[in-house]
Amino acid sequence: MFFHKQELQFKATPDKPDAVYARKLQEVLGGQYGEITVAMQYGFQSWNSHLPGKYRDLLYGIAAEEMGHVEMLAIMIAQLLEKAPLGITDDAVQSDPTIAAVVGGMDVQHAIVAGAGARPVDSNGNPWTAGYVTASGNLLADFTANANAEMQGRLAVARLYHMTDDKGVRDLLSFLLARDTMHQNQWTAAAKELQEEGYELLPVPSNFPIKKEEREVSYQYLNFSDGKHASEGSWASGPTPDGKGEFSYHEGPTTTAPMPDVTRPDARYYGTTDVPNVVEKVAGTVQDKLHRE
Amino acid sequence: MFFHKQELQFKATPDKPDAVYARKLQEVLGGQYGEITVAMQYGFQSWNSHLPGKYRDLLYGIAAEEMGHVEMLAIMIAQLLEKAPLGITDDAVQSDPTIAAVVGGMDVQHAIVAGAGARPVDSNGNPWTAGYVTASGNLLADFTANANAEMQGRLAVARLYHMTDDKGVRDLLSFLLARDTMHQNQWTAAAKELQEEGYELLPVPSNFPIKKEEREVSYQYLNFSDGKHASEGSWASGPTPDGKGEFSYHEGPTTTAPMPDVTRPDARYYGTTDVPNVVEKVAGTVQDKLHRE
Amino acid sequence: MFFHKQELQFKATPDKPDAVYARKLQEVLGGQYGEITVAMQYGFQSWNSHLPGKYRDLLYGIAAEEMGHVEMLAIMIAQLLEKAPLGITDDAVQSDPTIAAVVGGMDVQHAIVAGAGARPVDSNGNPWTAGYVTASGNLLADFTANANAEMQGRLAVARLYHMTDDKGVRDLLSFLLARDTMHQNQWTAAAKELQEEGYELLPVPSNFPIKKEEREVSYQYLNFSDGKHASEGSWASGPTPDGKGEFSYHEGPTTTAPMPDVTRPDARYYGTTDVPNVVEKVAGTVQDKLHRE
Amino acid sequence: MFFHKQELQFKATPDKPDAVYARKLQEVLGGQYGEITVAMQYGFQSWNSHLPGKYRDLLYGIAAEEMGHVEMLAIMIAQLLEKAPLGITDDAVQSDPTIAAVVGGMDVQHAIVAGAGARPVDSNGNPWTAGYVTASGNLLADFTANANAEMQGRLAVARLYHMTDDKGVRDLLSFLLARDTMHQNQWTAAAKELQEEGYELLPVPSNFPIKKEEREVSYQYLNFSDGKHASEGSWASGPTPDGKGEFSYHEGPTTTAPMPDVTRPDARYYGTTDVPNVVEKVAGTVQDKLHRE
Amino acid sequence: MFFHKQELQFKATPDKPDAVYARKLQEVLGGQYGEITVAMQYGFQSWNSHLPGKYRDLLYGIAAEEMGHVEMLAIMIAQLLEKAPLGITDDAVQSDPTIAAVVGGMDVQHAIVAGAGARPVDSNGNPWTAGYVTASGNLLADFTANANAEMQGRLAVARLYHMTDDKGVRDLLSFLLARDTMHQNQWTAAAKELQEEGYELLPVPSNFPIKKEEREVSYQYLNFSDGKHASEGSWASGPTPDGKGEFSYHEGPTTTAPMPDVTRPDARYYGTTDVPNVVEKVAGTVQDKLHRE
Amino acid sequence: MFFHKQELQFKATPDKPDAVYARKLQEVLGGQYGEITVAMQYGFQSWNSHLPGKYRDLLYGIAAEEMGHVEMLAIMIAQLLEKAPLGITDDAVQSDPTIAAVVGGMDVQHAIVAGAGARPVDSNGNPWTAGYVTASGNLLADFTANANAEMQGRLAVARLYHMTDDKGVRDLLSFLLARDTMHQNQWTAAAKELQEEGYELLPVPSNFPIKKEEREVSYQYLNFSDGKHASEGSWASGPTPDGKGEFSYHEGPTTTAPMPDVTRPDARYYGTTDVPNVVEKVAGTVQDKLHRE
Repeated sequence: MFFHKQELQFKATPDKPDAVYARKLQEVLGGQYGEITVAMQYGFQSWNSHLPGKYRDLLYGIAAEEMGHVEMLAIMIAQLLEKAPLGITDDAVQSDPTIAAVVGGMDVQHAIVAGAGARPVDSNGNPWTAGYVTASGNLLADFTANANAEMQGRLAVARLYHMTDDKGVRDLLSFLLARDTMHQNQWTAAAKELQEEGYELLPVPSNFPIKKEEREVSYQYLNFSDGKHASEGSWASGPTPDGKGEFSYHEGPTTTAPMPDVTRPDARYYGTTDVPNVVEKVAGTVQDKLHRE
Repeated sequence: MFFHKQELQFKATPDKPDAVYARKLQEVLGGQYGEITVAMQYGFQSWNSHLPGKYRDLLYGIAAEEMGHVEMLAIMIAQLLEKAPLGITDDAVQSDPTIAAVVGGMDVQHAIVAGAGARPVDSNGNPWTAGYVTASGNLLADFTANANAEMQGRLAVARLYHMTDDKGVRDLLSFLLARDTMHQNQWTAAAKELQEEGYELLPVPSNFPIKKEEREVSYQYLNFSDGKHASEGSWASGPTPDGKGEFSYHEGPTTTAPMPDVTRPDARYYGTTDVPNVVEKVAGTVQDKLHRE
Repeated sequence: MFFHKQELQFKATPDKPDAVYARKLQEVLGGQYGEITVAMQYGFQSWNSHLPGKYRDLLYGIAAEEMGHVEMLAIMIAQLLEKAPLGITDDAVQSDPTIAAVVGGMDVQHAIVAGAGARPVDSNGNPWTAGYVTASGNLLADFTANANAEMQGRLAVARLYHMTDDKGVRDLLSFLLARDTMHQNQWTAAAKELQEEGYELLPVPSNFPIKKEEREVSYQYLNFSDGKHASEGSWASGPTPDGKGEFSYHEGPTTTAPMPDVTRPDARYYGTTDVPNVVEKVAGTVQDKLHRE
Repeated sequence: MFFHKQELQFKATPDKPDAVYARKLQEVLGGQYGEITVAMQYGFQSWNSHLPGKYRDLLYGIAAEEMGHVEMLAIMIAQLLEKAPLGITDDAVQSDPTIAAVVGGMDVQHAIVAGAGARPVDSNGNPWTAGYVTASGNLLADFTANANAEMQGRLAVARLYHMTDDKGVRDLLSFLLARDTMHQNQWTAAAKELQEEGYELLPVPSNFPIKKEEREVSYQYLNFSDGKHASEGSWASGPTPDGKGEFSYHEGPTTTAPMPDVTRPDARYYGTTDVPNVVEKVAGTVQDKLHRE
Repeated sequence: MFFHKQELQFKATPDKPDAVYARKLQEVLGGQYGEITVAMQYGFQSWNSHLPGKYRDLLYGIAAEEMGHVEMLAIMIAQLLEKAPLGITDDAVQSDPTIAAVVGGMDVQHAIVAGAGARPVDSNGNPWTAGYVTASGNLLADFTANANAEMQGRLAVARLYHMTDDKGVRDLLSFLLARDTMHQNQWTAAAKELQEEGYELLPVPSNFPIKKEEREVSYQYLNFSDGKHASEGSWASGPTPDGKGEFSYHEGPTTTAPMPDVTRPDARYYGTTDVPNVVEKVAGTVQDKLHRE
Repeated sequence: MFFHKQELQFKATPDKPDAVYARKLQEVLGGQYGEITVAMQYGFQSWNSHLPGKYRDLLYGIAAEEMGHVEMLAIMIAQLLEKAPLGITDDAVQSDPTIAAVVGGMDVQHAIVAGAGARPVDSNGNPWTAGYVTASGNLLADFTANANAEMQGRLAVARLYHMTDDKGVRDLLSFLLARDTMHQNQWTAAAKELQEEGYELLPVPSNFPIKKEEREVSYQYLNFSDGKHASEGSWASGPTPDGKGEFSYHEGPTTTAPMPDVTRPDARYYGTTDVPNVVEKVAGTVQDKLHRE
C-alpha cells in the first residue's frame, strides 16, 4: 500500500515562469528515462520479486521515493507554466518575436489540453509508455537496467541544468542530481553484492547450462566493420569478465551457413512463388485446386 | 555503408514447422530487447559517437553483426511457419482441439498479413518501436545500457530454449546464447576500460561539477518503505562505488519542503479555481473581463 | 511524497495457478481503464489542481489508494503464474490439447519477458500509455472523466468475475467491485457538489462567455441518420440540463455553407494542382521558376 | 452506409493564413478528445448497440455529424496553411525572427509530409490512436464517457478561441462550441433518461449481483493522504448517489492483509531466487536438473 | 458533410457465432490496411486536395463508401461474438479443450472491454493508428499508395476467405473482394489518367527541377548484396519507365566519400569525447570551465 | 549477413550548423517513409521471399543500400547539431529572439536525450515504428508499396531541398533525390516484369478464384458523394486495367441489405439491452439467474 503526505522531499518552486523550460523538464518526468519510468520499473521489479529480504526491500523503498519525484516535477512544471505566456492573444505573439519564440518553443498541449498543467509525456509530447519498463525477474539483469536508467536520467538532468539560470529550478535539479548519484551507486553496489553472494553471475542468466551454448564463439570478437582499432580493446584479447574464458579477435565471422532456400507456403496465402500465378493458364495445379474449392 | 552477403552466420533451419513457437521467437527479433533493438542501438551510438578509435570501431562492428542476427531470426521464423497449420479450413481447426490450440496460440498476423512470413513485432504482435533505443552520446551510460540489453536478450533466449525441443531451433539458440555471452562480456570490458582510461567515471556524467549537486543527500539510502532489511545491504553503509563517499541509512526522507500552493493560471484556461465560476453572478472580475473581451 | 507499507489493502492470493486468467486480469491492471490509469490520472489532477481544499485532498487521497490497487493486481498476477504451465517443454504442450490451449491463451510475454511476473500492459499485451490519462484542470470535466473511468473499470471487473471460479481471485474482485462502487458514487457526489457550490456548471467550461457561441444551434438535435426514434428522447424536446434552453429536433443540418475551393499552396510543396506539372512543357510559370531557382 | 455531400455544416474559412494556429487546431481534430475520437466512438457504440430504438438512433445520428466536423476542421487547417510561410527559404527564416518564430511554432510535418495539408494527428504531432475510443456496450458508462468527451472537447475549443483573433476561425469555433454545448446537454439527458427508464442505474453495471461485492467497503471514504479537508465533502458522509448506502470517512484503510510471500517459479525462467544460482557449486538441485536436461 | 442511412451495402450476418474468426476479421477492420485506414486516407486526401474536379470527387466518393465498410465489418464482428463462448465459466473452458482453444484464440478484449462488440483494433489487438494514413497532396504518389492499400487489403480478405466455411461470412468477403477489385482497377486507372493528362509524371514529384538531382546515379542499379541474378532484371538494363534514361548495372556503389570525423559538441552535453573526462585531473580546459560556471 | 565499411556512399557534411534543419531532416531518416522504413521493409520482403532469383536478389541489394542511407542521414544530422545553439544558457535564448526561435524550432530531445546526436524518430519526434513496414509475401502488392514509399520519400526530400540553402546539405539531398528516382523506376519496372512473366496480375492476389467474388460489383463506380465530375474519369467507363471487365458508373450503391437487429449477448457482459436492468424489480429472468449464480 502507498500513503501520501502533502509535503515534498525538496523545495520545487521556480523563481519565474518559463513555458519553454517547462516543456524541456517534461523529459525527466515522462521520458524514456524519466521518473515515471523508474517508479514503475522498481515497482514491478518489487512485485515480481522471487527473493525475499534486502533486495526486495530496496526495490520497494526506491519505487516509493521515485513516485515522490514524479510529483515534484509535475508541481514544478505547473508553476513554471502558471504565469507564462501560453499563446493567448494578449500575449502579443504576432507582434513580439520574443513572445512568439516562447510560444513556438513550448508544448502547446500544456495550454490547450492541460490548462497550464503538467502532462505524463516527454519533452516532445510523446505519451509515456510502459514499453520503457524493464522487469525480468532476474535481478542482475534488472539492476544493470536500473543503473543504466539512473545514468541516462542524471545525464538528462545535467544537460537541463545548463539550459536555465533560474535559481529555484536549479535547486531542484541539484537535488535530483544528488539522488541520481546515490541511485547509480546503489544499483552498482547491489549488482556487485548479488554476484558476491552467488545469487547471479555473468553471463546472465548464470545458471543456464553453459555447455548448451555454442562455446566456440562465446568469447570471439568478430569484426563486421573495417575499423582498424577494434582489436586494441580489452574485449579483443585477455581474460573475460565472467572469468570463464579468453577473448580472441577475428575479422568477420568464424562460422557461416548457406542461405536456406526460399519458403513456399500453402498457395492459399497468395504469396508470389515460382509457380506462376496466371490462373487461367494453369490447370491441374494448386491454382486449379483453388478454383474447385 | 552496409554490404550484404547471402550467407548466414550460423545454420537457422528448424526440424519441423511450429507456428506457436514462431510467434514466441518474434520476441528476440522484434521485442524490447530483440535483435532489431541492438542493431539500431549500436548503429545510432556509432553514428553519434564523439570519440574516434576503438570504441567507435567496436560499435560499428557489432551493429553490423546484429543486423545479421535480425536476418537469421526472420528466416528461421519464415521456415517455422512454412508448413505449419495457420488456420485455413483444411487445418480442421473446428474438430481437432490440438490444431485449434495451435492456431489459438499463433500470431494470426503471421498468416493474414505476412502470408507465413516473419514480422518486425514482438511475441504479442506489438510493432517494434524506436522508443526502445538508447544512444545518449555518453559511452559509459550507453555501454551499461548495452550490457543490460544483452542480459535481457540472453535471458529471453534461455527461456525460449526450454520451450522447444526442435534440434534445429535449439542449434540457433545455442549460437545466439554464445554471442550474447560474448556481448555481455564485451560491454562489461568496454565499460571498465572507459573508466580505467579516464574517459568517464561514476557517477555519470562524471565531469558535471559535483559541487553543484546537493551533496548532503548524494549517498543517503532513504527508505520509503517499511522493509526491515534494506539497511543490511552494501548500499546502506560503507564506501560508495564511485569512491567519493560513504553510504548512510535513513528511515524516510532527510529533507522536506511544504507543498506549494495551488497554481492559479489565467482565467482563459478555464480551470476550476477558488474564484467561483458562476458567470452570471460575478461582476468586475476575470469572468466579467472574459465577457467583455 | 509517497510512503510504502508492505501490506495489502485486501487479500490477493489465488487458490490455484491460472495463466490464462492472469492474462485477462492484466486488463484491469494495465488497460485503458485499469488501475495504472486511475492512479496516474488522479495524481496528475491533484498536482495540477488550481483549487485548494477538499477537492484536491480527495484527489491526493484516491490517487494513493489506486497505486495500492496496482500493487495488489500485480501480486495476484504473479501468483496466478507461479505454478502454471507457461509453455516449457515439460508442459507437454504438443500432446495434451488442454495444456496447449492454456499456453495458447496466455500472454507469452508473461513467460519470455517477465519470467512469470506481472507486466504494465493490458490483456492483449499492449503497453500502458499515458494517452489514456485525462487531467484538464477543469474539475467538472475531470470528475466526469473519473466517474466514467470507475464505471468502465467496474464493468471490466464484473465481466472478469464470471470468467473464473477461483475463490481467492473472486475475493479480490469482490473488493475491487466495492471500491469501484464507492468511487463511482464519490465522483458523482463530487461533481454534484462542485456545481452546487458554483465552481463549475454545465456546459463546461461554464465561464466561457456564452454569447460568443453560435447560440442558434446550441440546443438543436440534428439527425444525420435516418433513424425514426431519435426524436423520442429527452434530448429532442423539453428543457436542457444546463437550465438555459429548450431542445428542438431537426432532420439533418439547420445551417450549411458551400465547400471552400481547393487550396493551392506554393509550387515547392509539389502537390498536384490544376497547373499541369509536366515540366518540359511549361515555360514562364511556377515550374519555370522552380527550374531557375 | 454513409453518404457524403460537398457542403459544410458551417463556414470554415480563415481570414488569413496562420501556420502556428493550424498546428494548435489539430488538437480538436486528431487529439484525445478531438472530432475523430467522437466520430469513431459514437460509431462503434452504435454498431455494438444491444438496445434498438431511440438510443441507437441517437448514436447513429451524432456519429455522422461528427464525421462532418472532422472534415470542417481538416479543410480549415488546409486553408490556414495555404499561404503561410512553412519554412521554405524564401520565407527568410534566417534573417527575420518573426518568421523564424512562426516556423519554429508550426507542425513541420504540415509542410514536409502533407504539403500544406491537414493531418490525423494532435497538436504535438502524435498520430490519432484508437486507444482513445470507449465503447463498452454499457450505455450508462458510455454516455458518461461521451459527456466527458464533449466537456474536454469544448474546453479545448474555448482555450483555442483565445489564441486567435481571426474572425473566420472564431466563427467556426463559435459553432463548434455551440454543438459541444448541445452534445453535453444531450448525453447528460440521455444518461438521465436511461436511469429513469430503468435500463441502467448506479453503480454501473447495475445488474451485477451486489451481494457478491465486499459491501463493507462500498461506501467508505478511505483517506490515503494527509489532507485535512477530504472529510468535508459530500463523499465522506450522508446518503450515496446510488441510493443504496451512507458514506463514511476513515483515515487510511479499514482492511489489510499481509504481503504474500515472494513467488518462486520454475527454475527455467532464470529469475533470481533464494536458491543461489552459482551453478558450479550446486548439485542435486534444480540447477543440476537444468544441466542434465 | 456525412449522412448515415440505417442500411448496409451488402448483407453481413454470419450463419453461426465464431469468436476466433471475429478476432481475425478485425484485421480488415482496424489493421494497417483495414477499412478504417482507407476511409481516413481517402478522406484526408480529399480535404487536402489541390485539384478540383473529377479526382477530388473520386476521393470524396470512395471515402464515404469505405466508412460504410467499416460499419459492415463492425456489425459482422458483433454478430460473430453474440452467442460465442467468450470465456465465462459456463463455457466449461477448463474441462473442454475445444472450448479452451476457442477462448485461447479469441481477442479477450472482445469480452472484457467491449462486452461482445467490435473494436477499432487489428487482429492482434493493436489499436488503429493514424500513422497508417498517407495523404501527401501529390496525387500520383497518393493514388499509388491507394492502389497498394487495396492490394494489401484484398490479399488479407482472400486469406481470411480460406479461414472460415461460414456461408454468411464468405458472402460478405466475396463482396469486399469485388469492391477491392474495383478499387485496385480504379486507382490504377486514375494514376494512369493523371499522367496522361500531364498532372504528374515519373519520377514523383515530376516538376522538381531534375537537373538539381545527382543525375549520374539516377538510373544505376547498385548491387549491395552478392546475389548473382539482380542483373537479369529489367531494372538493370534498358530504358527506364520514366522515359528519361537507361538503366545500368554496377556491383556496389559507384561513388564513395570518406566517413566524416566524429562530432565534438559543447562539453555541457557530457558526451564521451577524446578529452578525458576525469574532472579532478584536468585544469584549464572545458571541464575547468564547467566547474567555474 | 551484413558487413560495414567506414565510408559513405556520398559526401554528407553541411557547410554550417542548423538545429532546426536537423529536426526537419529527421523526417527522411525516421519518418513513415524515411530510410529506416525502406531498409526494414526491403529486408523483411527479402527474408520472407517465396521466389528465388532476380527478385529476391533485388530486395537483398536495395535493403543494404538503404541501411547505408540511414547512416548518411544520421551522420549529417549529428554534424548539423555539432556547433548549433541547442538551448544552453550561453545561447542567449532569453535576449535574442533569433536564437530563441532556433531553439523553439529544434527537436529538444536532440539536446536533452541525444547530446547533439541523431535519433530514430520523425520530424515531430515520434519514434519510428514497425507499423510502417509492409511485407506481405505477394510481390506485386509489395513492389507497389515500394514504389509508393519511394515516391513519398522523394517528395519529402524535394520539399526539404527548398528549406535550406546549405550547399553541403543540398548535395546530399541531390544524391538522395537521384537514388529515389532510380528506386521509383526500379520498382515500377519490377512490378511490370512480374506481370509480364505471369507471376502476378491485377487484381492482386491474381490466383484467388475470381468466380468466388461478387462479380456484379467488381467494376462498378459507386458514387457516395454528390460530386458531379467523378463520372468523367476513366474509372467510370471503358475497359478496366485488369483486362477483365468494363467500368460502369452508378449514383450510390447498387446493392443494399437491411441493418441487422441489435445483438443481445449473454447478460454477464452487462451491456445495456432491452431487458431493463433494474435488478431489484426483475425476477425469473437473466438478472435473477445472475443473482443466484
